[in-house]
Amino acid sequence: MQKIYLSHTPRRKAQQEFLRRIRLPRRVERVKTAGAAGRITAEALFARLSMPADHAAAMDGFAVQAESTFAATDQRPLRLAPGDGYAPVDTGEPLPPGFDAVIMVEDVQTLPGGEIEIIAPATPWQHVRPVGEDVVAGELLLPAFHRLRPQDLGVLLAGGSTEVAVLSRPKAVLIPTGTELVPPGEARPRGSVPDFNSTVIAAYLQEWGAQTVIYPIVPDDRKRLEKAAARAAEEGDLVIILAGSSAGREDYTVHIIEALGEVFVHGVSTKPGKPTLLGQIAGKPAVGLPGYPVSAYLSLEWFVRPLICRTLGQPEPAREELAVSLGRRVVSSLGSEEHIRMAVGYIDGRFVANPLERGAGMTMSLVRADGLLIIPPEAAGYEQGETARLELYRPRSELRNNLLAAGSHDLIVDLLATALRERATGLTLSSAHLGSMGGIAAIGNRQAHLAGVHLFDPESEAYNTPYIERLLPGGDLRLVNLAYRMQGWIVPPENPDGIESVAHLAAKKISFVNRQKGAGTRILFDYLLEQAGLSPADIYGYDREEHTHLGVAASVAAGSARAGLGILPAARAFGLGFVPLREERYDLLMNGSFYRSAAGKTVLGIIGDPVFQERVEAMGGYSMREAGKVMR
Amino acid sequence: MQKIYLSHTPRRKAQQEFLRRIRLPRRVERVKTAGAAGRITAEALFARLSMPADHAAAMDGFAVQAESTFAATDQRPLRLAPGDGYAPVDTGEPLPPGFDAVIMVEDVQTLPGGEIEIIAPATPWQHVRPVGEDVVAGELLLPAFHRLRPQDLGVLLAGGSTEVAVLSRPKAVLIPTGTELVPPGEARPRGSVPDFNSTVIAAYLQEWGAQTVIYPIVPDDRKRLEKAAARAAEEGDLVIILAGSSAGREDYTVHIIEALGEVFVHGVSTKPGKPTLLGQIAGKPAVGLPGYPVSAYLSLEWFVRPLICRTLGQPEPAREELAVSLGRRVVSSLGSEEHIRMAVGYIDGRFVANPLERGAGMTMSLVRADGLLIIPPEAAGYEQGETARLELYRPRSELRNNLLAAGSHDLIVDLLATALRERATGLTLSSAHLGSMGGIAAIGNRQAHLAGVHLFDPESEAYNTPYIERLLPGGDLRLVNLAYRMQGWIVPPENPDGIESVAHLAAKKISFVNRQKGAGTRILFDYLLEQAGLSPADIYGYDREEHTHLGVAASVAAGSARAGLGILPAARAFGLGFVPLREERYDLLMNGSFYRSAAGKTVLGIIGDPVFQERVEAMGGYSMREAGKVMR
Repeated sequence: MQKIYLSHTPRRKAQQEFLRRIRLPRRVERVKTAGAAGRITAEALFARLSMPADHAAAMDGFAVQAESTFAATDQRPLRLAPGDGYAPVDTGEPLPPGFDAVIMVEDVQTLPGGEIEIIAPATPWQHVRPVGEDVVAGELLLPAFHRLRPQDLGVLLAGGSTEVAVLSRPKAVLIPTGTELVPPGEARPRGSVPDFNSTVIAAYLQEWGAQTVIYPIVPDDRKRLEKAAARAAEEGDLVIILAGSSAGREDYTVHIIEALGEVFVHGVSTKPGKPTLLGQIAGKPAVGLPGYPVSAYLSLEWFVRPLICRTLGQPEPAREELAVSLGRRVVSSLGSEEHIRMAVGYIDGRFVANPLERGAGMTMSLVRADGLLIIPPEAAGYEQGETARLELYRPRSELRNNLLAAGSHDLIVDLLATALRERATGLTLSSAHLGSMGGIAAIGNRQAHLAGVHLFDPESEAYNTPYIERLLPGGDLRLVNLAYRMQGWIVPPENPDGIESVAHLAAKKISFVNRQKGAGTRILFDYLLEQAGLSPADIYGYDREEHTHLGVAASVAAGSARAGLGILPAARAFGLGFVPLREERYDLLMNGSFYRSAAGKTVLGIIGDPVFQERVEAMGGYSMREAGKVMR
Repeated sequence: MQKIYLSHTPRRKAQQEFLRRIRLPRRVERVKTAGAAGRITAEALFARLSMPADHAAAMDGFAVQAESTFAATDQRPLRLAPGDGYAPVDTGEPLPPGFDAVIMVEDVQTLPGGEIEIIAPATPWQHVRPVGEDVVAGELLLPAFHRLRPQDLGVLLAGGSTEVAVLSRPKAVLIPTGTELVPPGEARPRGSVPDFNSTVIAAYLQEWGAQTVIYPIVPDDRKRLEKAAARAAEEGDLVIILAGSSAGREDYTVHIIEALGEVFVHGVSTKPGKPTLLGQIAGKPAVGLPGYPVSAYLSLEWFVRPLICRTLGQPEPAREELAVSLGRRVVSSLGSEEHIRMAVGYIDGRFVANPLERGAGMTMSLVRADGLLIIPPEAAGYEQGETARLELYRPRSELRNNLLAAGSHDLIVDLLATALRERATGLTLSSAHLGSMGGIAAIGNRQAHLAGVHLFDPESEAYNTPYIERLLPGGDLRLVNLAYRMQGWIVPPENPDGIESVAHLAAKKISFVNRQKGAGTRILFDYLLEQAGLSPADIYGYDREEHTHLGVAASVAAGSARAGLGILPAARAFGLGFVPLREERYDLLMNGSFYRSAAGKTVLGIIGDPVFQERVEAMGGYSMREAGKVMR
């Protein structure tokens, strides 16, 4: 097999090329109007019947012939007899023949014997809804390519159309490939990867108006993949092959599309999303998506969404744009268009955004993202504090009420995010894991509302306050206790190495996993080292860094480290051993302006709530005895 | 039965009262994650498994032990043997035990015999995705009350949850009532009304997250209605009775809710929407909606939507707001909060809005509406040109490309609206039917992009130009011919009265239906009268006005008039007779700024397109011989 290299086609050019060379068929089907909400009209729709079909009473009252009432005055009331003179009508009822006006029930005196008495003339057509007032036969009800809303169904039914011609949903066939893939519900042997991508991609396609078929997973076997692709092109309007789109040893997708049809583009100069494949099989669009989830979903949106939208006559949904101040420096590689997921909050009158994890494999970055920062290939990035434009994933109005938590991460912050939702506070919370020192800086630069800090000061043996006084002197700040939590050694179950101190780590050359610089736990570890008269070089794995407690625990669980320093719930999440070391104070740092704001009061209200505190303590390893207390 | 009067409860107060006194149950169900898009999480969701589950290669290449490579330089390349020395790995594969780094395939020389040669050391953990990098067991994936998006399904599956706890959709039971109602697909005997309201209401409820059951139509019979309501309260979480909510002779809803449960509010001080009923049956919310469609849908949104959103832990969807300049005076009655549907366009750098038909029965006004103007009870309305804030039904970005057509209505304008969609121009078109004179005024005041005019000037015997020169002297205007069209007498099939002229109308006392003042057809009729030496008093029905050609035809078709003046397609739509009278010129008036704009060019391009012209002429009664020609 010849060696394949990816090209660096700019995204826009690749889009144009693909859309120019291929299209999805536009088919029409007739569906019941009652179930047609969300479908797209295939033609202009005209009313076949009128509504009302007859001149109808617009009020409850009496139908009369206006001309016969002209003489009525309050001096000389006029009497009308039932039958020829008047007829009782309810709202919506058609006027009996010969009548052309309605007198409201409250303007009439009913006499014994059935006559009515009126004291003012009726003008012709008063309180009458003329035929076709709402919908008139022949009238244009809806244009073609219109997405049907509930009220549209009403006028179609009123106009006599119980069926409606709508555009068929294009049918996409997804082929998940990869010997390592297993269906998400099944057991995961070592080295296997659950195939969640096809579910996500099918859900996106359905949201955009396509129908989807997911084929069973095809292993990396050129023959079997070729067979599946050929069948997909027969069955569907669009073939999507999930993964194998790059230029690796077992990346067959490009060869298969080449063999069965034609490759238009292989390789797009974006990050993530580069190994995208655009082509056709049997005249039908064929797309090879990258295997990394973020790459796959972005690529799907760039190349498949416009294809579907064009077929359905819809503009691509435009995302709201927003100018934000960047809370951190964002570097970008020249030559690639970078798509960076961002967390956005509204702080002291301006929108601030921080980059989330950038890897193409970071599915959680798409879950956490409030917006997307697109850096063109010719730009090297942005400095901290610069203004950039984002495409928003959530409405701007919602982001005005989004709190940004920076600093050290703790599960209590997640519980706080959940409590804000559950209590319908209208507030949401996005977390960036920057470590305690990063959190203090973010509060100082007004790039976050809250920062979790747990910094032990070896000199004063106090927590947090000395750091804040040193780093942000004289600021209008509040430091509020969130919890006391137990730090300890996270070790394999039952602590087989008998770890109890840093001295043990060094003596037994235990493989250690550290936290990143600036993290409170790292500072504590360095303090412990110093106390024990040891240096970083004495610890095997000192330079290996994880950014969260759970990351540390995961490394121990996977066996790639034998010990780490962290909190009890992290060890519990993986069923690991935990050797308690010392209790530390975990505080939330915030600016005075936030502390005094309505949002700040809501957050403090939750922290002070005994129900919330019980929930935290139930996780184990936490004491809420001073939760909510202002420490400074 | 005692007489019932409606109260005038302010809308906000009625909402608060209803929401305070009653709630829907919040139930939880477990559904397959793969099919859960759009559902709302019932609890905070934590990862059960990590992704990746092992340290995995982030690149295609060779797994090595970093420590063993520290000596490699390009001067002294290092050779590694397969097995203990290195292992080939593809992206995503777990590292074999003992290895802690990956060297990319392109940085390695493969030697015959199976050894590899490297010329630089690998740093520990390079090109390795650590366990849990994307999703780590124990991590918060999603908070409670979160609407699941495609990417959320991905992290749930990655985290090991193939099922997810979501909030159940509350079940609403709809009871359509009214002796006059027939199911929409069935024959419509005189006086019957198709029940399209229950379809529309069910579609709204589903959009907001409820499930719906529609009961068969119940006639106005207190016993049967009571039985249906009791059963609905047993079966559903929420009972909605469609119509009969007012205080009329056969409005039983209030009596039934009173008998089976309790009425909280009967009558809201809004227009439309006044006869709304809020209460409970067997502890479940029971709502009586007004029978007029617009009233019913607005009332549903005010009172039922917040109930559903609260149950699902969602904020009510907020509509974008927009400040607009009012193209016409809008009067409002004191004491009622008025909700007026508006058409919005962007003209010469500002948003302009015109009110649509205001009746509660005008379903088409909700179809045509671009936004809603809410006038509080204490305000009397707005003057023309005043600024008002609208709640938008369509995004502001879309309305920037919405053209406003004013003036005389013609079916060609509808075809133009359709062509703008079909050709994916990005433009849409909203029509207000103001008559030719109203259209000229709208162009002069810059309240519309286009105005259809067909004004015959008796003195010069010319069309349009004399009026424009008189009314808008010296303006930078363009008058573009759209079509010549045949005006004639619209009469019953085969013209039983033998109408050929106004003289016949007068002589035979034929019941006539006229057009409104300012309409070109009205001016033509007045000219014909004058030519014949007749006066309005000689015409029976001269004062009866319709606003469109189709309205005139509908009156003739319904038998309430025997003749009207109008165009051929209107007569055809109702299968009526048509007696040609004279061809008239129908032009589009526009400001020079619009004529020169990109949007203007797009419109003129369509008018000049032979395919479009053929489609118009196929309707009959039109000549496109000068279509697109600038007449002034």
